[in-house]
Amino acid sequence: MSQDIQALQAALRAFAQERDWEQFHSPKNLAAALSVEAAELLEHFQWLSEEQSRNMPAEKRAQAADEVADVLLYALQLADKLGIDPLDAAWKKLGTNGEKYPVERARGRSTKYTEL
Amino acid sequence: MSQDIQALQAALRAFAQERDWEQFHSPKNLAAALSVEAAELLEHFQWLSEEQSRNMPAEKRAQAADEVADVLLYALQLADKLGIDPLDAAWKKLGTNGEKYPVERARGRSTKYTEL
Amino acid sequence: MSQDIQALQAALRAFAQERDWEQFHSPKNLAAALSVEAAELLEHFQWLSEEQSRNMPAEKRAQAADEVADVLLYALQLADKLGIDPLDAAWKKLGTNGEKYPVERARGRSTKYTEL
Amino acid sequence: MSQDIQALQAALRAFAQERDWEQFHSPKNLAAALSVEAAELLEHFQWLSEEQSRNMPAEKRAQAADEVADVLLYALQLADKLGIDPLDAAWKKLGTNGEKYPVERARGRSTKYTEL
Repeated sequence: MSQDIQALQAALRAFAQERDWEQFHSPKNLAAALSVEAAELLEHFQWLSEEQSRNMPAEKRAQAADEVADVLLYALQLADKLGIDPLDAAWKKLGTNGEKYPVERARGRSTKYTEL
Repeated sequence: MSQDIQALQAALRAFAQERDWEQFHSPKNLAAALSVEAAELLEHFQWLSEEQSRNMPAEKRAQAADEVADVLLYALQLADKLGIDPLDAAWKKLGTNGEKYPVERARGRSTKYTEL
Repeated sequence: MSQDIQALQAALRAFAQERDWEQFHSPKNLAAALSVEAAELLEHFQWLSEEQSRNMPAEKRAQAADEVADVLLYALQLADKLGIDPLDAAWKKLGTNGEKYPVERARGRSTKYTEL
Repeated sequence: MSQDIQALQAALRAFAQERDWEQFHSPKNLAAALSVEAAELLEHFQWLSEEQSRNMPAEKRAQAADEVADVLLYALQLADKLGIDPLDAAWKKLGTNGEKYPVERARGRSTKYTEL
């Protein structure tokens, strides 16, 4: 596993322990919190056109960055609780996605693999 | 930035380019897709008790791992599009959270910082 | 269709027209906004135990009511844009759910119908 | 309260009771389920352009209608558990929104009221 990610997960563990928050951090609750943060991120984009979202001013990008960070922090805590190596899982899923969406059939199409 | 994460982001970029999917991958759309994946993750936990979520059988944990992976893949793609270093943003946000939730006031409480 | 709901949808239409917001209210954007509001609702429950969520003080329930309302307002606007009768759709879906979850097999179980 | 909505809520109550599902239907869990359904709805729109979302073929609209229905079913169940009258709450919130977004300042702008 990436040393960087392990270090961040260790810091998150210490953060929760110092605050006696482990009682709240069940996987169920962390998954809910992750979903809430993902929606807070989406809120920054909901009324923008796609074009505007591709050209956000620096200040707006910094706000979005904070929400991306929250998403990552909860995803890493949840992975930690579930005993999942996050980067391993991500690489493995990317491989699965490659099988679900073969280049020749998926090219230029946003169709879901179940209907591809 | 972590070499591991950069490598994964490069693989994701290649994955999208090969499929000519960059037209679909506006930050707006990636934020929506991230939110959808976070909800698919939450679905695995929605009817479980917290206790059950702390003791998931290996098979269920593997299913959850796949959804955590999808969340990470979209978060990393979105960070890439926005020019955000994801680990830097995460460490910075952890620091901010430490200020919002000082140990002495936050200990043992799940109260939001705005009401702490 | 229910007169009450039609009246509310008409008020929502007028609200958006007065503000020249129809340009923002594509079904895509309304679906994102609905998802964001549902997450804001979830935020009120994320750290509560189920027991606590069954016994919320009146003030907290009033806050949750406001978020339920936002969810309804966007759901009704989206239904309007899509030309869907919301109550008809709801009754029809309840019927479908009855077929997916027959009483004798679903009783006392939270298993998804695909695995029932 | 609307007779139609009360009738639907009564049917939902009977549906859950017959299946002994009340044990799972804490407000916390219903809020999570609502969020999951809202995301399933969003999934239908995530890769569409706004223009495409305004012109969905009938078949796609019917699929979206089913997800709108699921959102409503959970919102009505949650309102029922919390002792909230959903239409009252919706009308009240529409009034609040009118104060947050006065016509003269909000016209043609998607800015959040906190920055308006």
